[in-house]
Amino acid sequence: MTDNTKVLLKRQSTGIPVADDFEITTAPIEAAGDGELQCETIYLSLDPYLRGKISGRHMSGAVLPGQLMAGEAISRVLVSNNAGFAAGDIVAAHSGWQSHPVIEAAHARKLDPAVGPLSTFLGILGMPGLTAYAGLLRLGEPKSGDIVVVSAASGAVGSLVGQIAKIKGCRIVGIAGAAEKCAWVTGVAGFDEAVSYKSGDLRKGLDRACPDGIDVYFDNVGGDMLQAAMERLSIGARVVLCGLMAQYNSDEMPPGPNPAFIIKARATVRGMVVYDHEDLREEMVTEVSRWLREGRIQYLEDRAEGLENAPRAFSRLMQGKNVGKAIVVVGGE
Amino acid sequence: MTDNTKVLLKRQSTGIPVADDFEITTAPIEAAGDGELQCETIYLSLDPYLRGKISGRHMSGAVLPGQLMAGEAISRVLVSNNAGFAAGDIVAAHSGWQSHPVIEAAHARKLDPAVGPLSTFLGILGMPGLTAYAGLLRLGEPKSGDIVVVSAASGAVGSLVGQIAKIKGCRIVGIAGAAEKCAWVTGVAGFDEAVSYKSGDLRKGLDRACPDGIDVYFDNVGGDMLQAAMERLSIGARVVLCGLMAQYNSDEMPPGPNPAFIIKARATVRGMVVYDHEDLREEMVTEVSRWLREGRIQYLEDRAEGLENAPRAFSRLMQGKNVGKAIVVVGGE
Repeated sequence: MTDNTKVLLKRQSTGIPVADDFEITTAPIEAAGDGELQCETIYLSLDPYLRGKISGRHMSGAVLPGQLMAGEAISRVLVSNNAGFAAGDIVAAHSGWQSHPVIEAAHARKLDPAVGPLSTFLGILGMPGLTAYAGLLRLGEPKSGDIVVVSAASGAVGSLVGQIAKIKGCRIVGIAGAAEKCAWVTGVAGFDEAVSYKSGDLRKGLDRACPDGIDVYFDNVGGDMLQAAMERLSIGARVVLCGLMAQYNSDEMPPGPNPAFIIKARATVRGMVVYDHEDLREEMVTEVSRWLREGRIQYLEDRAEGLENAPRAFSRLMQGKNVGKAIVVVGGE
Repeated sequence: MTDNTKVLLKRQSTGIPVADDFEITTAPIEAAGDGELQCETIYLSLDPYLRGKISGRHMSGAVLPGQLMAGEAISRVLVSNNAGFAAGDIVAAHSGWQSHPVIEAAHARKLDPAVGPLSTFLGILGMPGLTAYAGLLRLGEPKSGDIVVVSAASGAVGSLVGQIAKIKGCRIVGIAGAAEKCAWVTGVAGFDEAVSYKSGDLRKGLDRACPDGIDVYFDNVGGDMLQAAMERLSIGARVVLCGLMAQYNSDEMPPGPNPAFIIKARATVRGMVVYDHEDLREEMVTEVSRWLREGRIQYLEDRAEGLENAPRAFSRLMQGKNVGKAIVVVGGE
């Protein structure tokens, strides 16, 4: 039997995390105790919120140097000591960056592989999916005909936000960086327009794509992108603050937009934390998986092969170099 | 018969307006045309939004040099050429800084002097009253037991926000400047706590007054006060952005708080413009005038005597030196 490969945090990094901030170790695979599941990891999810855990700033807690790096993963159960699970079951759990986790059954969610491709349970059918679904529909309150703008539009959350808004009858503008991301957003995901912030003309691009202003802005970035969108809000606009990619790698708290933009537009700005919307998960999985089967939802994955490549892939993600949902393929399906 | 005394804008000021930015002139009193009312002004209202009109920035339009200075006033009808009004009626209208306006009947609102003291129709029963009532109850959604913080707490809007919140069962903290304002806020208006931003310890004061955070923040100021409040929001907090006293005298658009504060608190931030809430005016007058008769609402006026003192009083207001609703007594009741 192989060992358990683990990726530990080696040091608290400042700035963009690099592969050297992590350390790969092996240890014997642990046995499952009472009520526990011995598993093998299939897919590991890399998400921007993990950056906050490394610096101890995230609300879900810190990862300290020497500790196993945190993250959600899809695993196959090898041994079950809980009546609710059997060997061969597929589960999702926050089991971290390791190849053979032992998971408390109470913290594992059994997945139905018939619902969608396994890896999508880390993306559009998982936490990013719930973020997009609840953030847009509950907090963004899109109405048919609304102009909806979303930043990080090719990302796991952004791409789904746009596509759900499209299904709801909105006109969708995505902000992304690289040309290939913009091309995917309009060419594959069906956005009406893509605006590149890398063209140096974010504001002109937005003016061209949204001459009548923005009704819903779903923000995954903060910084200047939030500022540019705030300058263009229509009366009664809704802004969903969901992510802060522009500042995750920094310990600074840079200032935000002047409050006058919110007053002028009589806008409603809401902060989004996905943990508050667990009640919508079942509805989200039902709806999004149906749209997926109907071919109305496209998704993009940025896959790294092998747990040993997780640190490098995470560094890429935190530089915005990923194209689509960042996933590490740890074991075979 | 006396002349019509008028105050014109002499020049677009930068920074804090001074008396010299205005010019006092007299002209013969105009006759009322068809459908018009010839009136004599009793009380003129001075409000911070007028600062934006002088610099052409306010959504209700600009006042240009040489033009009559704008503002709402309470007047007595001398001659009526409209069937809906009679000589002796008391009306409110945006008739500007003049002693004897001719007002289109369609733009005049007849007041019932039995409802409350006449000057309160410019304050707690007028536009500031509607701002406080709709802003707090419709946008702030206070619940009994909530910690409600309001800035410019001795002002026309702020003092009413606090007192309505108190009636609704909240714990009220007011932020004000001068010691006499703070004393009025707690000693007369019944706020639970007053925090002085002039003590240089705004943050410590807020921490002392709101150890469990802020559930509703009603902001009339912006700037560092908004920043300090944002740092202390409770989960699910509502922020009403109503005024920007900190930047009215400036042409700059200084940055605002980092969006992370809104996300962390899952807060809802709404921009308030009183014009959107006209549908609540009747309810507001009914409710607030009842509370006033019941002795549950206190109000404070900062009165200047004579139209010629309006420029100086406006300058005082824009320096935050007024204590209570700024009113100019133009004629006798």
